[in-house]
Amino acid sequence: MALIVQKYGGSSVADTEAMKRVAQRIVDAHNAGHQVVVVVSAMGDTTDDLLDSAAALTSAPPEREMDILLSAGERISMALLAMAVNELGVEARAYTGAQAGIQTDSRFGAAQIVGMVPERVARAVKDGQVAIVAGFQGISKDDDVTTLGRGGSDTTAVALAAALHADVCEIYTDVDGLFSADPRIVPKAHRLRTLTQEETLEMAAHGAKILHLRAVEFARRYGVPLHVRSSFSEKNGTWISDAPANPELKGLVPDAALKSPEENAMEKPVISGIAHDRSQDKITVTDVPNSPGVAARVFAVVAEVGANIDMIVQNIPVSDPTKANITFTLPEGDARKALDALEAHHDEIGFNELRYNPNIGKLSLVGVGMRTNPGVSARLFSAMSDAGINIDLISTSEIRISVVTRLEDLDRAVQAVHTAFGLDASETEAVVYGGTGR
Amino acid sequence: MALIVQKYGGSSVADTEAMKRVAQRIVDAHNAGHQVVVVVSAMGDTTDDLLDSAAALTSAPPEREMDILLSAGERISMALLAMAVNELGVEARAYTGAQAGIQTDSRFGAAQIVGMVPERVARAVKDGQVAIVAGFQGISKDDDVTTLGRGGSDTTAVALAAALHADVCEIYTDVDGLFSADPRIVPKAHRLRTLTQEETLEMAAHGAKILHLRAVEFARRYGVPLHVRSSFSEKNGTWISDAPANPELKGLVPDAALKSPEENAMEKPVISGIAHDRSQDKITVTDVPNSPGVAARVFAVVAEVGANIDMIVQNIPVSDPTKANITFTLPEGDARKALDALEAHHDEIGFNELRYNPNIGKLSLVGVGMRTNPGVSARLFSAMSDAGINIDLISTSEIRISVVTRLEDLDRAVQAVHTAFGLDASETEAVVYGGTGR
Repeated sequence: MALIVQKYGGSSVADTEAMKRVAQRIVDAHNAGHQVVVVVSAMGDTTDDLLDSAAALTSAPPEREMDILLSAGERISMALLAMAVNELGVEARAYTGAQAGIQTDSRFGAAQIVGMVPERVARAVKDGQVAIVAGFQGISKDDDVTTLGRGGSDTTAVALAAALHADVCEIYTDVDGLFSADPRIVPKAHRLRTLTQEETLEMAAHGAKILHLRAVEFARRYGVPLHVRSSFSEKNGTWISDAPANPELKGLVPDAALKSPEENAMEKPVISGIAHDRSQDKITVTDVPNSPGVAARVFAVVAEVGANIDMIVQNIPVSDPTKANITFTLPEGDARKALDALEAHHDEIGFNELRYNPNIGKLSLVGVGMRTNPGVSARLFSAMSDAGINIDLISTSEIRISVVTRLEDLDRAVQAVHTAFGLDASETEAVVYGGTGR
Repeated sequence: MALIVQKYGGSSVADTEAMKRVAQRIVDAHNAGHQVVVVVSAMGDTTDDLLDSAAALTSAPPEREMDILLSAGERISMALLAMAVNELGVEARAYTGAQAGIQTDSRFGAAQIVGMVPERVARAVKDGQVAIVAGFQGISKDDDVTTLGRGGSDTTAVALAAALHADVCEIYTDVDGLFSADPRIVPKAHRLRTLTQEETLEMAAHGAKILHLRAVEFARRYGVPLHVRSSFSEKNGTWISDAPANPELKGLVPDAALKSPEENAMEKPVISGIAHDRSQDKITVTDVPNSPGVAARVFAVVAEVGANIDMIVQNIPVSDPTKANITFTLPEGDARKALDALEAHHDEIGFNELRYNPNIGKLSLVGVGMRTNPGVSARLFSAMSDAGINIDLISTSEIRISVVTRLEDLDRAVQAVHTAFGLDASETEAVVYGGTGR
């Protein structure tokens, strides 16, 4: 027997028919002898519909009431899903975020989990019931409903899995798992059988959309094994963990998940996957005095308005070494306020002009194999060069290399690099995994 | 300054446009210097849509989860309404049943209020905010969401008004108030300016649909003045109280509400209104032994299955005085289980047969003036007789006479009696109230 937390996104419970399918999957896991806790998002377009209603009434909705409004979507889906499971002969109990003991701070719309006391959930599964929990929501110490922001249901699921010491947190979505690159850009992208938590973190932080960064961070911090898979098929998806799976899960996880990480590492390619991100903008502050403390002043101003800086490059023009240009990237939503803040501090910083470029794209190569394989950057740069694509900025971590290109070159860059690193499906599936094709 | 509780039903907040209208009304009351607490039902068809979704999944939904599901409707409407009020420049806070301190027992789907601790609501209005509370829902001591059953939002509003010592509980609906009879049956029915709580109780208990019986009982027990009025017009509606209104409410209540009950009584007709009820069925148990204790046995059997008996008649055939026929009426939903229970106790009771008639209608004449005016029954019976309508059963209270007729005669009976008692609008409005017509 294993304890399984299953998370179903909105597309998995888009309507009552989809819900019946999900209910059957839950019941199958229960009948196979496992304890099952389910986290569910709002049905299909519910959240958008609620947002539309709010927008029809006000352009500045109060945050507290917005959270009450949005939390209703998950309450509907969890109650209905519990009914569907009951109908299949397995007792199910639905719990709101508050009832599941998900305690948060009071930052409406983007609340952080500050405590987990899932007593009722634990009691329910101990009594042989399926517990169904509303994703995305919690309760503040003032007894107010809060929502966890984007990717909140993933976070709920991982936090519950951590608190309940679950053997796996299954993240059900509408694709078969994580891929070596976005299949819409690289049709030959292959599904990843396993991925380390560190790699997943880098992928999520640099544009991969399947899993939300906060959930991955949570999983990593508490060592929660994740299994990202499709609710529309029985196929195994991507296993994300730094430890082998509980053997009880055999059949429910990819076979590779049962092996030790060392065994898996031997079979892994140097690069696991390529993430891309179109949502960053670039700002250059030109001709600032090349003296100590100026860069610090620039970023203090930007940080003050809450903009999140990603990459930073400083260069000194050969023509005038007393000046420097500072370039950085940030999420497109933060660009306006950063520009305004810098403009307001023009005299204090002493720059010449602000250059703003929203037309950039970022490609990130991720893989733990990078640590022991020199030459990855060289191979990346030559692939880009062969494809005639200019690299604007570069940043690296121990297991990642990111490069910024012009936005219109991004897709081509991803395709070229995917091929250059031997990730295209026909090769990889056959060579690395010995797969029989999909 | 007065403290006003306003309750808006689903038709008053059917869509965001209707909600804006309601928000404006709330803001008007606030800006007139009053403290305003609002109770709101789910928007238009929300509850039906949720029931449809549940029905698509299961024919036997678990009650606890059904209550979670249905409570979502009010959470949506209260959050949106708070946004709409905020948009008009008045601070509003939305509170769930739990947050408003509405404590109930655990009878899901038909919970009873067992405690009221509306601290947060009281604090909000003290701070100059409008408090918007989800109707129809509460929280059990096990921390489960409960719903109060039919008319639950009215009950929430009256209970809040009682706990907060409100000066009036305004019940907004889609008609102008309570009428002397259902205007769909009697086009000349007139709106009632005032009604005593006792009269309202009898009207609600005997088929008038505007106010739910439980809410009226609550209002009577705690002396909460009610004002039933339309959310689609500025007209005053029906004032229900046994005491004159707080003079601060002048303009917000009918002028008659400011007078003493004695003054109003002098102007009142003998009969205030006529309620009717199509939802009762009739059962006759024939030829039971005419001996002590037999009737008690019949009703013990019926009570055991939870059927609510309304009228009872026992008669003894002239041909065989050792036998008796027992006839009673009960809600149509209870008939099946009552018949089954009686059949199961056939030998013990010793009846000959069970006769079941669903085709009955009940007309009830209500008015405190009945106490001091003899001859009301005679006038009623002769009106029925003149209209050629047979009376089957009769029951009375101090301020009510009810008669049962064949279902197909009911409408005609209501019309005939309405005219016979001088209630038709042209006469009543002119003679009794001196009104100038509507």
